[in-house]
Parts: sequence; structure tokens; C-alpha cells
Amino acid sequence: MKVLGIDPGLRICGYAAVQGGLLSTSLLEAGAIRIKTDIPLEKRLAQISEDISSLIESIQPDVLAVEKLYAHYKHPRTSILMGHARGVILLEAGRRDIRVLEYAATRIKKSLTGSGKATKQQMQKAVQSVLGLPEPPKPADVADAAAIALCCAGEMETRY
Amino acid sequence: MKVLGIDPGLRICGYAAVQGGLLSTSLLEAGAIRIKTDIPLEKRLAQISEDISSLIESIQPDVLAVEKLYAHYKHPRTSILMGHARGVILLEAGRRDIRVLEYAATRIKKSLTGSGKATKQQMQKAVQSVLGLPEPPKPADVADAAAIALCCAGEMETRY
Repeated sequence: MKVLGIDPGLRICGYAAVQGGLLSTSLLEAGAIRIKTDIPLEKRLAQISEDISSLIESIQPDVLAVEKLYAHYKHPRTSILMGHARGVILLEAGRRDIRVLEYAATRIKKSLTGSGKATKQQMQKAVQSVLGLPEPPKPADVADAAAIALCCAGEMETRY
Repeated sequence: MKVLGIDPGLRICGYAAVQGGLLSTSLLEAGAIRIKTDIPLEKRLAQISEDISSLIESIQPDVLAVEKLYAHYKHPRTSILMGHARGVILLEAGRRDIRVLEYAATRIKKSLTGSGKATKQQMQKAVQSVLGLPEPPKPADVADAAAIALCCAGEMETRY
């Protein structure tokens, strides 16, 4: 079972592909797609679409995992713009009949650290530890994507 | 100059294509794309993408016009989800190098009625009148898309 976790954004999209469940997981690939910021929104979305397409074609994931939307955001405009990027990413899954699974932030935190209230630093340490990395993935968007992918892989292992 | 105005949504996307400026405008085509609601979000986005692609290919607009995002929304979650649809629509423009122009709601209202505070009903009447229709376009999403297209066509005429 290959899971591609993505942390959508209009400047950086973090991604991480993992194989296996939470207790026997290997990291296939992780990184950040950096989007040009000096071009119009529609061109930024076109870049995200192209880069995510290539990523999906190269990784061939069974599942695409993202964080669930939550009800209240501090910066409404920013989160609507993030929604543009998220929409374009989910579209690439939908076009290929790849299943999309969403996990609430608290569930991702609990899955990795045992606590739904884990700090960003605790999460980064947990990702580092589970994947056996010399240091936490950077930028933070990559660690976030890895946490989503690990949560999804772990939950799927539990369920099936 | 052909303008395709779109009112993005996850249930209905209103669209209207107009040619010419505000004082000499003809309606080329208008309608509503209805999206299935009993399928996952990523499949809905795939349907929007396909339908908007076909529309753009058939109309060949010079400009795609949408309403500008505004800072405060009453329903944050709904507007982030709308952002998903809007992102997928803008993507189809970006992929084809079609220029996207955004207009604030107040500017669209002022452009059509002379007042930035026009009611929904006044706007529908104005759209009906400018386009010489027997009644206001329905559903309201189509009238909204027509208002956006007319505002854009009018502003472009003024400017060039």
C-alpha cells in the first residue's frame, strides 16, 4: 500500500510517499514543490497541477492523503487561497480514480505522538523517529506531509 | 473580445459568455454546470474540470472573469470549498494562457446599476435589461456569471 501525503499551499506543497503501515513504514520519497510567486494565481495553479501530476505518475500511489479542513481559520482569505491549491491537487487524484482520505489535525497528531495536542516540534521529532531520519524533514511542509502519510498508512494498516 | 464570466461552486457553476463592451454587448451563451453531489469531492472537481474545459474549448474566450475574493465570509468552510472549485476553474485558464480578470462584488454592482450596493433583484433586472432578455437568467448563478462577464466587457471597453 503506497500513500502519498500532501500538505497543499500556493507557495510550497510538501509531499511524502510512504509504503507499509505505521509500524513498518518506509519512506519512498519526500520533498517540497516550490511554486513561483511572481506569476498570476492561475499560472501558479497550472504549475501545481503539472508538478503533482508528474509526482503521481512517478509514485503511483494507492491513496492520496490530506489534512481535513477545519471549521475555523484565523486567516479566511489565506485559507480560501489554500483551497485553490487543495482543489487542484485533489483534482489530479479524482481524474485518476485515486482514493482520497482526509484526516483531522488532531487525529494525525494523536496517531504519531499519542496526543492530539502535540506541538509542531513534537510532531517533527515523531516523524523523524518513525522514519529513522538523522534530523526532521525540512521545510516544515515536508514534515507535515510525512505526518499525514504516516497517519494514513497506520490507520489503513489497523483497518485492513 | 470574448469574455467568459464564471460563478464558481461545488453544486452549480454559472457561466455566461459575452462579446463586445457594456454598451454593445451580445450574449453568446449562458448556462449552469450542475455537479453531482453524491460523489466524493475529488470526483466533483474532476467533473468541473472536464465541463469547464469543454466550455473553454467551445467558446474560445479571450478573458475569463470571476468575482474577486473578499476578506470576510460568513461561512468559512463553505468558502474554502468554493475555493477548491475556483482553483480548478482558474487552472483551466492558466493551462491555456487565458487571461483571468477579477472584479470586486461592489465594482460589478456599480458597473451594472450605478450603485455598489445594488440588491440581488436589482442586479438580475440590470442583467436582463442589458442583454435584452424576456426575464432574468435562472438559476441566480447564471445571472451572477452574466453580471461578472458584463462588468468585465464594459471595463475592458472603457480601457482600450
